[in-house]
Amino acid sequence: MPLSEFTLIDRFFAGHKNLNSQVKLGVGDDCALLEVPVGYELAVTMDTMVEGVHFFSDVAPEDLAYKLLAVNLSDLASMGAQPIAVSLALTMPEIEGVWLQQFAIAFIKFSKQFGVDLIGGDTTKGTLTLSLQAMGLVPVGRALKRSAAQVGDLIFVTHKIGDAGLGLKILKEEYDAGIEAEQVKSRLIRPTPRVNEGIQLRNYANSCIDVSDGLFADLTHILEASRVGASIDWEKIPLSDAVKKYIAETGDWQMPLNAGDDYELCFTVSSQKLSSLNIQCSCIGKVESNLGLRINKAGVTQEISRYGFEHFS
Amino acid sequence: MPLSEFTLIDRFFAGHKNLNSQVKLGVGDDCALLEVPVGYELAVTMDTMVEGVHFFSDVAPEDLAYKLLAVNLSDLASMGAQPIAVSLALTMPEIEGVWLQQFAIAFIKFSKQFGVDLIGGDTTKGTLTLSLQAMGLVPVGRALKRSAAQVGDLIFVTHKIGDAGLGLKILKEEYDAGIEAEQVKSRLIRPTPRVNEGIQLRNYANSCIDVSDGLFADLTHILEASRVGASIDWEKIPLSDAVKKYIAETGDWQMPLNAGDDYELCFTVSSQKLSSLNIQCSCIGKVESNLGLRINKAGVTQEISRYGFEHFS
Repeated sequence: MPLSEFTLIDRFFAGHKNLNSQVKLGVGDDCALLEVPVGYELAVTMDTMVEGVHFFSDVAPEDLAYKLLAVNLSDLASMGAQPIAVSLALTMPEIEGVWLQQFAIAFIKFSKQFGVDLIGGDTTKGTLTLSLQAMGLVPVGRALKRSAAQVGDLIFVTHKIGDAGLGLKILKEEYDAGIEAEQVKSRLIRPTPRVNEGIQLRNYANSCIDVSDGLFADLTHILEASRVGASIDWEKIPLSDAVKKYIAETGDWQMPLNAGDDYELCFTVSSQKLSSLNIQCSCIGKVESNLGLRINKAGVTQEISRYGFEHFS
Repeated sequence: MPLSEFTLIDRFFAGHKNLNSQVKLGVGDDCALLEVPVGYELAVTMDTMVEGVHFFSDVAPEDLAYKLLAVNLSDLASMGAQPIAVSLALTMPEIEGVWLQQFAIAFIKFSKQFGVDLIGGDTTKGTLTLSLQAMGLVPVGRALKRSAAQVGDLIFVTHKIGDAGLGLKILKEEYDAGIEAEQVKSRLIRPTPRVNEGIQLRNYANSCIDVSDGLFADLTHILEASRVGASIDWEKIPLSDAVKKYIAETGDWQMPLNAGDDYELCFTVSSQKLSSLNIQCSCIGKVESNLGLRINKAGVTQEISRYGFEHFS
């Protein structure tokens, strides 16, 4: 019998012991079954990656598996949810046994590292397209939403931003970062979903989002959902040495603000709760009642009207 | 600003009042939030439909929206779960406003009819590919699985099978069904997920599956998962007049057994529980300890070794 959609997922993905006790039935039936403990809600997200749009055709299957997991877990992180399970819809042009095996082995490996169980999915024929639905647990009423930023909140971003955008320029051979190229590219190829930070932020943050489309675009989502505005300070944006060097050489200072794929968390915290905040992050600005997003750079305030990366634009 | 993935789902899908109180947060944030009532488990399934594989390029957007919902809710039905929510990953080559609007209006309309809320998703650029994840509630420990068929169980199928397969032949102009053509095609294009039947079957059935890949293939899934065999009687297979006429004209009696897309439920019931069974179904055979699947036709027993429709074969 030829390999078929019946056997693909079973052959490569089944038979792995589930890590999470909430998974009552995993791969192999018409549905999976999840238990949600009393006092918790299930956070659900879905992200798709398409060949030629979200990744290059020559991407390593291991890198694709990693990133598919990372971008979805980043969405859970931004709500403060603890990831438990994922479903995979894998569409591929034809069965390439070696590619699929490498992808599957990596997918299972990284799933275990991230602490999630693959509970089901669907394998179909077509252009290489991967949709993942990720599910996580968050205590009832404690999820971090985009819509609860308050005037006066300070705005933070975790770690540094812009490396993924620079990594893309390096991959496309638009920029030569010298000896730092590999490290910068790894931030694009293997971003870290800030799951633990998100869980801690349940105690501090009023609002939160992950920086997938770019800081401008994602912060704007918070502002619009919360019906507030903000000012940010260019000098406070946390940048790596490689990004600073790129800006010095090119003058393209907006790149780290418009580029997506960093998967850092952008969140707002009221000043009363600042003292107990103990994750790696930088304060970049403040929420204001004046709608819109403004950036202060070298004493000049500019209104931001541009959005980040948009697939259809 | 051009239409983008940011605005697509919001523009067409957001702002609809959720039907189910378990949906605590719907479209518009990084994740949706679901409440699972005490005493229930969440059944989760995911099915993908790809242009040129699962549907023709000229399919009406309304029909595509209907079927995407129906095939996923059918998976919930086969576990006996009450559907509550769906997530949609929509990949399309470019923004066609009219098409998208027709699809979205139909998707929302049929979602309401089926009683499910769209809680999120992702819109991306690429070959037309639609993945839906559907979620439903089932009382703890009461889900109908493939793996619990018992030797001695009688095998049933709801309503009739084969119409979808015949409908495909009519669509491909391989067969002329005359005045019955439209009705037969509608069984392919607008199949009914047997949600209510699945919920009732929680009281009777030992095992259950939906007939998506063909009766032979799907019954074989039950038999393999339950480590049992079965015999079915050709004369007991419930067929429409149109399918009977097709078989009489062509001799192709295996079509209704191999063709998929009927989305009827195939289930097994122990003889002790037969008397209280009150859904529209036909007994087609019996579960046996002798592994494999056999069919009796006109006094001759044949071993079934073929599988139904397989995308990669």
